[in-house]
Amino acid sequence: MTITAEQVRQLREQTGAGMMECKKALAEASGDVGKAIDLLRKAGIAKAENRSGRAAAEGLVEAYIHPGSRVGVLIELNCETDFVARTPEFGQLVRDLAMQAAAAGADYVRREEVPVERVAREREIFRAQLEGQNKPANILDKIVEGKLEKFYSEVCLLEQPFIKDDSITVRDLIQAASSKTGENVVLKRFVRYLLGQD
Amino acid sequence: MTITAEQVRQLREQTGAGMMECKKALAEASGDVGKAIDLLRKAGIAKAENRSGRAAAEGLVEAYIHPGSRVGVLIELNCETDFVARTPEFGQLVRDLAMQAAAAGADYVRREEVPVERVAREREIFRAQLEGQNKPANILDKIVEGKLEKFYSEVCLLEQPFIKDDSITVRDLIQAASSKTGENVVLKRFVRYLLGQD
Repeated sequence: MTITAEQVRQLREQTGAGMMECKKALAEASGDVGKAIDLLRKAGIAKAENRSGRAAAEGLVEAYIHPGSRVGVLIELNCETDFVARTPEFGQLVRDLAMQAAAAGADYVRREEVPVERVAREREIFRAQLEGQNKPANILDKIVEGKLEKFYSEVCLLEQPFIKDDSITVRDLIQAASSKTGENVVLKRFVRYLLGQD
Repeated sequence: MTITAEQVRQLREQTGAGMMECKKALAEASGDVGKAIDLLRKAGIAKAENRSGRAAAEGLVEAYIHPGSRVGVLIELNCETDFVARTPEFGQLVRDLAMQAAAAGADYVRREEVPVERVAREREIFRAQLEGQNKPANILDKIVEGKLEKFYSEVCLLEQPFIKDDSITVRDLIQAASSKTGENVVLKRFVRYLLGQD
């Protein structure tokens, strides 16, 4: 079991414990940082889990509250350097994305996040809608897949048409920022609250 | 199976379908509104699930972004009437709570939300810390429970000392607003993003 310097550094940052103590805990925990934190806490060396930890990426956390305060969005947009995060263009981009999420009401960032049960349910509904139209099975499949594509473009933020220019998608908008800055720009996550709804 | 007027109203609001169609769908779905929506969609009557739906409570959705935009909080505070939600005091309360959640970094609203596995893990760590002190079991239990209380007051927003006046807890602060307005004031939910961390 080799303990890397990166693991030791990470554990030190998260616990404030000394280097040798961190190395020992990591060896005992077979390199598992979470277990090593527990070991240091049990030994009374780390006081408590440092819940703030280290920010692993650059970017901005931004919010948008729609006038009336019944709808709000919290969003995180990542890039690679603080320099890019501090540009006015990056600030504008994350504000646009927060407003998009509030206005267009997506449920997910990307289609990979849509639960399989929800996709199955949508498929079933689309099929039922087409019943009795006597279409061949292969045509039916194509129509259902087409409807599913439309569904994704409604519930996945990256696939939605951009509210300020519907000739492009949100993904295109982010891709353009990526090209312009030369950095990987990633919409990491968002959450949308609607008053009185879970 | 009796279909209530309330169920019909709810279904109409969520689908835009007519009253008789809603009654029929509810009867078929044995009163299950979710199933009734699916039935209406399959019949092509409801176009798509109305994801916005109805706000079941009054209150405000508010956000706080800490200077630097590396930490942000989205929060929902409920009350009973729009009148109370629009008062400056209620607005100040929700802004204070959002700032509290950002600064003090709670993970949960109330202790009932802390996963049992996390409580078990904390207990285990507290016990290990006390090992070798040769204390009687009943004393040991009391110390562990005391440490657990402290843990709750750190991770549960309602149990934290209020950052602007640590002689009261956040729960006291909300309770005071409740007494003053004569309405049930409930901190429904919050989420906290720290840049680069899940």
